[in-house]
Amino acid sequence: MFTKLRTPKGTRDYLPEEVERYRYIEDELKGIFELWGYQEVRSPTIEFVEALSTGIGPELVDNMFKFQDFDGKILALRPEMTAPVARIVTTRMATMPEPIRVFYVSNVFRYSQSYIERGREFRQAGVELIGCNTSEADGEILSLLISSLIKLGLKEVRVDVGHASLLKDLFEATGLGQEKKGVLQSLLSYRDEARLEKFMDQNNLPSKLRETFLQFSRCRRLDEVSSVSIGSSEFGKTDNHVRNLLGVKDVLASYNIEKFVFFDFSLMRKIEYYTGMVFEASAPNLGLPLGGGGRYDDFIEKFGQLKLPATGFALEIEKCLQALIAQGFQIPEKTKAKILVLSETKSAAIEAARIFRDAGVVTSLDVLGSDKKKTEEYAKLAGIDYVFYVASSLDEPAMVYDVGSNFSRNVTIEKFLQSVGSRA
Amino acid sequence: MFTKLRTPKGTRDYLPEEVERYRYIEDELKGIFELWGYQEVRSPTIEFVEALSTGIGPELVDNMFKFQDFDGKILALRPEMTAPVARIVTTRMATMPEPIRVFYVSNVFRYSQSYIERGREFRQAGVELIGCNTSEADGEILSLLISSLIKLGLKEVRVDVGHASLLKDLFEATGLGQEKKGVLQSLLSYRDEARLEKFMDQNNLPSKLRETFLQFSRCRRLDEVSSVSIGSSEFGKTDNHVRNLLGVKDVLASYNIEKFVFFDFSLMRKIEYYTGMVFEASAPNLGLPLGGGGRYDDFIEKFGQLKLPATGFALEIEKCLQALIAQGFQIPEKTKAKILVLSETKSAAIEAARIFRDAGVVTSLDVLGSDKKKTEEYAKLAGIDYVFYVASSLDEPAMVYDVGSNFSRNVTIEKFLQSVGSRA
Repeated sequence: MFTKLRTPKGTRDYLPEEVERYRYIEDELKGIFELWGYQEVRSPTIEFVEALSTGIGPELVDNMFKFQDFDGKILALRPEMTAPVARIVTTRMATMPEPIRVFYVSNVFRYSQSYIERGREFRQAGVELIGCNTSEADGEILSLLISSLIKLGLKEVRVDVGHASLLKDLFEATGLGQEKKGVLQSLLSYRDEARLEKFMDQNNLPSKLRETFLQFSRCRRLDEVSSVSIGSSEFGKTDNHVRNLLGVKDVLASYNIEKFVFFDFSLMRKIEYYTGMVFEASAPNLGLPLGGGGRYDDFIEKFGQLKLPATGFALEIEKCLQALIAQGFQIPEKTKAKILVLSETKSAAIEAARIFRDAGVVTSLDVLGSDKKKTEEYAKLAGIDYVFYVASSLDEPAMVYDVGSNFSRNVTIEKFLQSVGSRA
Repeated sequence: MFTKLRTPKGTRDYLPEEVERYRYIEDELKGIFELWGYQEVRSPTIEFVEALSTGIGPELVDNMFKFQDFDGKILALRPEMTAPVARIVTTRMATMPEPIRVFYVSNVFRYSQSYIERGREFRQAGVELIGCNTSEADGEILSLLISSLIKLGLKEVRVDVGHASLLKDLFEATGLGQEKKGVLQSLLSYRDEARLEKFMDQNNLPSKLRETFLQFSRCRRLDEVSSVSIGSSEFGKTDNHVRNLLGVKDVLASYNIEKFVFFDFSLMRKIEYYTGMVFEASAPNLGLPLGGGGRYDDFIEKFGQLKLPATGFALEIEKCLQALIAQGFQIPEKTKAKILVLSETKSAAIEAARIFRDAGVVTSLDVLGSDKKKTEEYAKLAGIDYVFYVASSLDEPAMVYDVGSNFSRNVTIEKFLQSVGSRA
């Protein structure tokens, strides 16, 4: 009796008003993704664990809802969409010309204890730009992310950008063990320069490397990384990574959206496959980011056949909705008027409903045969705008009850149709 | 390596062209459901088996993908949406005025061996009209079903209508055991009158009952059931059921869609909860029905709190698509032109892309920096209509390569925008 009425922890139902908000966000995102030349793919909700686990790292693998197929194979609900897209590109799009631009709007599933902050089933909209490793590609992805958030109606957005390989190459140069690298990363993320200097001192980092860490750590904007004075080949491919970030900055400047973007040298993502630029989008007063992404050049080849560089992002629909609400945005109403039609003569009521629907007006028909009073009470509670009482024929004027004004008048169906708006 | 590249049996990926077709169907159905006053709800993909199993009968319960939660509870992937909707109505909509009109477009999951005919994960769009047990309500559901299929573009559609309680009441009156009832049902469904008469003879059915079976079995259209001569209280509530079917027929006649509807006395649905009118929609040369539904007045109360009559249907998106393709229907193209923009001056290319996108034209930007020849090859393969080469500034005319005609010309961006259509 109890579980009959509940949904599992971290999952929930969505009532019409909320679904409408979700659909606003999903439709806007689909619209802009398509305008930028991206095309939608869909993948199964359930897949083999082996496919879903490829290259995503232990944290997400642990968090998958896994179960056994009747054949004994281990299946899971997809925890993210980049691995399925990589599989699709490998198996079904290998002959397509590059770059390949795809998007998805999909439920994903993660079993984690923090289901209060985020559902165990949640919805993501994301894009992947595959087959291209230029700064222009990274810049497009970042620009599309920001343009999407602005298109939704968000005013206050920030995107923090880091670089997975820049951080990794410099960490390598320290020669520190895994644990100490972790300490270094958290000192960088706190931007605590005093403790950072002390730590580097204690661990005898060479002065040039120390200076490099300090300088990157001080950069707040992408263009500032150009001033970090480093030798081109001294620490990994640092120079390449810096050039990549400056190239991204140029693209952002052309889109006139630089102001939304900040540099965060310490930025790391939980998913393991990133190799280049990484980023997270956030809005004020939200616990979790709206979404994020980055470049993953070694990931698709893990599926065995294609060596394709790629970059992309995913947004969480629910987080976008929370940010919109927090920023006072009103989801535009799709429908201008809702009509309830009734008549003693049922065929006349149906004919009127047909006319209204053909004109794009949302119309319910009375199916209860209630009296006038009950019908008007129903209309009030059900969010109906007008009750349209058809006489025995549509040639005669109908009586229209305006729920908002609580006022009735006689009017022909043509006149009435002119007065109510049709669907936006 | 192998399972990394495959999806589980009965599941598959959908590439952009196919997703576009699915979305056409889903958007058309959502549109018409909304115009008729239905509102969308969403429910979790995973639920407690107890909730999903309530009242749906053993066949579907056996066919659920079940697995164990980390807490030890048994979860499953939803096999249909009427139980989740009943749960939502019980827990979240109990104070809403009736009738309640809701719809859904959802993936559902059934583990069955016949995954060649139908995927183990497939997509349904359906409606439920809750809180009303009139013929008008049944008529609305059947009319909405047929109107939806016509709206999609289907020309050849038929809906077979039966009545779960009519059949059940008359079966009860035979006094036969379960097995013999099964034989009787299949004889009725084959419409083999000779064998039917023989069977009723052998089992000593009273002559009035025999005559009733024969007469219902001969009816091919809803209006014909009025001529079946039976006493009102002789066999269960036969008279009520006949009145219900005739009421439905009146609604269909008012919508002028009677011609699509046939009576099939033997019609039974696999799901157990039906109590009144039941129906299946089909198209020529398709193995499985497009969808179906019926009235289920005792179902919602199984969730424990509300005794609400209801009626509804579900359509399978994939079957609708197959029927559309079989009937030669062309899914309307959403996009009039796809443009690829490039320039030596990146900021000029981005400015052009911005202008195109603002005008609603699908636009990709070159991110590879390829030469003219390579770019035009890419455009051909990627389904691009025009390659737009921006000079160093948009004030100068751009060179436009028309992929279809293989012809280039110089034109300003304003002129070019006028010549290409924007998004439909």
